[in-house]
Amino acid sequence: MKNIPHRIYLTEDQMPKQWYNLRADMKELPDPMLNPQTLKPIAEEDLYPIFCRELAHQELDNTTRYIDIPEEIQDFYKMYRPSPLIRAYELEKALGTPARIYYKFEGNNTSGSHKLNSAVAQVYYAKKQGLTSLTTETGAGQWGTALAEACAFFGLDLTVYMVKGSYDQKPFRKSIIQTFDANVIASPSDTTEAGRRILAENPGTTGSLGCAISEAVEKAVTTPNCRYVLGSVLNQVLLHQSIIGEETIKAMELIDEYPDIVIGCAGGGSNLGGLIGPFMKDKLQGKADPRIIAVEPASCPSLTRGRYAYDFCDTGKITPMARMYTLGSGFIPSPNHAGGLRYHGMSPILSKLYHDGYMEAVSVEQTRVFEAATFFAKKETILPAPESAHAIRAAIDEALKCKETGEAKTILFGLTGTGYFDMTAYSSYHEGTMTDYIPTDADLQRGFDALPVIPGVQE
Amino acid sequence: MKNIPHRIYLTEDQMPKQWYNLRADMKELPDPMLNPQTLKPIAEEDLYPIFCRELAHQELDNTTRYIDIPEEIQDFYKMYRPSPLIRAYELEKALGTPARIYYKFEGNNTSGSHKLNSAVAQVYYAKKQGLTSLTTETGAGQWGTALAEACAFFGLDLTVYMVKGSYDQKPFRKSIIQTFDANVIASPSDTTEAGRRILAENPGTTGSLGCAISEAVEKAVTTPNCRYVLGSVLNQVLLHQSIIGEETIKAMELIDEYPDIVIGCAGGGSNLGGLIGPFMKDKLQGKADPRIIAVEPASCPSLTRGRYAYDFCDTGKITPMARMYTLGSGFIPSPNHAGGLRYHGMSPILSKLYHDGYMEAVSVEQTRVFEAATFFAKKETILPAPESAHAIRAAIDEALKCKETGEAKTILFGLTGTGYFDMTAYSSYHEGTMTDYIPTDADLQRGFDALPVIPGVQE
Repeated sequence: MKNIPHRIYLTEDQMPKQWYNLRADMKELPDPMLNPQTLKPIAEEDLYPIFCRELAHQELDNTTRYIDIPEEIQDFYKMYRPSPLIRAYELEKALGTPARIYYKFEGNNTSGSHKLNSAVAQVYYAKKQGLTSLTTETGAGQWGTALAEACAFFGLDLTVYMVKGSYDQKPFRKSIIQTFDANVIASPSDTTEAGRRILAENPGTTGSLGCAISEAVEKAVTTPNCRYVLGSVLNQVLLHQSIIGEETIKAMELIDEYPDIVIGCAGGGSNLGGLIGPFMKDKLQGKADPRIIAVEPASCPSLTRGRYAYDFCDTGKITPMARMYTLGSGFIPSPNHAGGLRYHGMSPILSKLYHDGYMEAVSVEQTRVFEAATFFAKKETILPAPESAHAIRAAIDEALKCKETGEAKTILFGLTGTGYFDMTAYSSYHEGTMTDYIPTDADLQRGFDALPVIPGVQE
Repeated sequence: MKNIPHRIYLTEDQMPKQWYNLRADMKELPDPMLNPQTLKPIAEEDLYPIFCRELAHQELDNTTRYIDIPEEIQDFYKMYRPSPLIRAYELEKALGTPARIYYKFEGNNTSGSHKLNSAVAQVYYAKKQGLTSLTTETGAGQWGTALAEACAFFGLDLTVYMVKGSYDQKPFRKSIIQTFDANVIASPSDTTEAGRRILAENPGTTGSLGCAISEAVEKAVTTPNCRYVLGSVLNQVLLHQSIIGEETIKAMELIDEYPDIVIGCAGGGSNLGGLIGPFMKDKLQGKADPRIIAVEPASCPSLTRGRYAYDFCDTGKITPMARMYTLGSGFIPSPNHAGGLRYHGMSPILSKLYHDGYMEAVSVEQTRVFEAATFFAKKETILPAPESAHAIRAAIDEALKCKETGEAKTILFGLTGTGYFDMTAYSSYHEGTMTDYIPTDADLQRGFDALPVIPGVQE
C-alpha cells in the first residue's frame, strides 16, 4: 500500500462535473409522492408553486443517472471544494485499532457544513428562473447559513424560519445568517397562519423543523416571485449532495482504498444520501458489498423506531406526502436535544434502501455522542458539529470492534461540519449537566396515531 | 499564464520541512532584549525560568537561517496543513480590478487561525523538556484555543488568562478552550499579584494583553515544572509562523506568480512576520522588491503612531525589555475595539524592518474593516476574523488603486482566521451601532511618558 497522506485533496481538474442520481440504479424506486389534495401521485407541475421548475424536475427524475453540474455552480464549488478526505491517523493510534479510518470533512466553509453543496444549486436555479426571493427553515442553523451565503452571492432575498429552540440556543447562528443579509424569524411565529395555529395550540413550544417548513412554504406561496427551498430530505438535495460521495470515491481511488464500512449521521438524510452514492451503486450492482450505516439520535429515531409510511413533510400538512420512515409529522424532540438531526422523517430514497435491506441504522444517546466528539477533537484537532459526532461515535464503536477481532477494516465516515456554534451544548456536556432522552413507546405511538389515512393505500 | 485553480494546495511531500529564521538575513539585527534587573542584554539562561530551553535558544538565535521542524510537529501540521493559497476570483470580479488577488487562508482549523502553527511547536518543546503545565494569555481567543488544542494533544495542563473584554464578549471562545480541558481565567484576576495590583488601581478595567501576560508569567514562575508561552511578538513565534510564508512561496511558484504587494494584519506581528519571510528575504538580498504592508487598527496604532523604543512586553514590567514600536506597556485600547490586534507593542523583528524602511504600515478604522469583512464574506464565502479583515481592507484598497491606474498587480494577503466567535462585533456593525475610536495625541503621550528610563540607552 502507498504511503497515504493525512489529507487527500483532488485537484480542480479531478473534481466531479456531474451529480449522481442514485434513483437511476435502485432496484425498486421509492413510492411516489402524493398530492395532499387529490391523494394521487404528484406531477412535476404540481410542484411549481413550491419549487422552481428545474428543481421540480430533479425532484421527480428517477432515471437520469448523471446530471451535469452547471458551470456557475462548479465555479462556486471551487471556492470551497474539493473538501479533504482525511486519514484519522491520530484517532486510530488513540484507539489502538488496526482499522484504517477515513473521514470526508465538509466543515471547511463558512456555513460550517455540507449544506452549502445544495444551497448554491437551489439558489442558482431560482435565479436562473428569474425569481427574486426565497424562504426556508433551519434547525441547527447550518442550512440557513449556507442558503444565506448563496443568496448573498447570487443577489436573492431570503427569509429563514429558524426553529425556536435553536434561535434561542444559538444567537450567533442567527447573527451570521443576518450578516449575509437574510431575514431570520423564530418559528413558530405570528407571521404565518401555520405558525399562529401552532402557537395557539402550544404556546411554549420550542418549535420543530416540520413546523418551520410549514411556515416557510406558506410564506413562499403567498409571496410573489418567491419559492421555498429545503436543505434535506428531498431527492433533489441528495442529488446535489452526491458531490460528497463522488469526490470521496475518486480520492479513495488515488490511494487504492475502498471502504468496508460507510457511516453517516442521518437527520433528513442529506449528508448520508450524498456520501453513500457510489458505494451504494456498487452494492446495488453487485460490484462490492460495503456495510452502510445510518446513525441517528436516540431522541429522534426515525429509522430505528419509526414507521415506514406515507406522511406529511411538515407539521402544517400542506406539503406533498412522501412514504418514508417517520415518527409522525407532529413529532418534536425533547428540548434537551442539542443541535440538528431533529426531523420527524427520513429521505424517501434512504428510507426505501433501508427498508429493502441495503442499509443498517443505529441510534445513539447524546452524552455518548459528545463523549466521542470531545475525544475526536483532542486527537484530530477538529471540533465536530454534534450532528457529525453521531457518525464519529459509530465509527469509533466499529473501530473498537476491529480492535477486539484484530480485523484491519477500512472505515469511512462523513464529518459533515464543525461545532463552533454549538458551544452551549459542549459546555453542558463539559459541566456534566447534559442529559439523554429516549422517547417512550407511548410517546412514539402518539406520532403514529396521527399518520394520514389514504384510502386503499394506508388505512 | 497557466489556468490558475481557485485553491492551490501543496502535496504533503511539498510541505516545508524547515522553518525560516528571518533574522539570519537582516542587514541589521533588532537591538538585544534587556534583562529588566541588570539592564544588560539578556542571555539564554536568563530566559530559562520563563521559557523552556529550546525556545529560549530559538528566541536568541540570530544566525541559523533554516531550522529543522521536528518530525512530531510536522506530523501535527499534516493534520490541518497545508493551508490553501486562494485566488480571489470573485472578489476581483466584484471590485472590477485588473489586479490578481491571492490570500493564504489559515482559518481552516479549530483554533480558527494561524496561531496553531506556533502553539504546537511550543507545547512540543515543553513536553520534550518534561514540563507538566503551561500558562498563557489570550486576547481575541485564537491563541488560547490553539494552545488548548495542542496541550490536549500532548497531554499538558494549561491555564489561560483571557483579557476580560474578550472573556465577556466571547463566552463561546471560553467554552471551546474549556472543551480542550484548559483552565480559563478572566484577566485581570485575583489569582496573581500583578492582577490584584491592576484591579486595585482600575477596578472597572476590561483588561489588556500586557496585563494578562503579567499574570501568566507570574503564574508560570511560581508553579513547579511550569513555563509561560506567548502567541505573538516573540522571535520564536515568528520563526514557527514562517511555515505560512514558506508554503505560500512554494504554492506561488507552482502557478508562476510572485507578489507585487504583500499585506498582513499586525497586532504583535505573528502572522505578518510569518507570511513575509521569503519575500522579505528576496527584498533584503536584492532579488525582488515587493511592497510589504502591515495593517493595524487605528485604535491601537503601534507602528503608525508608536515610538521605536525599549519597553516592557507586559504591564507588570516583569518580562525582558525589547526595543520595538510601542504605545507604552500601560496602553489599553478603547473598550469598543473589537477582536484582537490590541497589543501595545510590535515584534522587534518587524519593528526593526519597518524602522529601516523595508516595510510600510497603514492603520484603518474598524467600521471600514467590517465593511470590507462583510463584502468579502458575501463574495468569497468565508467569514473572516476581524483581525484578518484589516488585511482584506488594505488589499481591497490596493486593488481599487489598480482599477484606477489599470495596473494588473499581484496582491497577496494573509487571511489569518475566521470570525465565527466574533458575531457580537459583526452584529453591532450590521445594526449600525459599531463606533470607531482613534486615540488622541494626549492619550498616546501618557503611554510614551511611561516608557522605561535606561541610563545611557534611553533617557
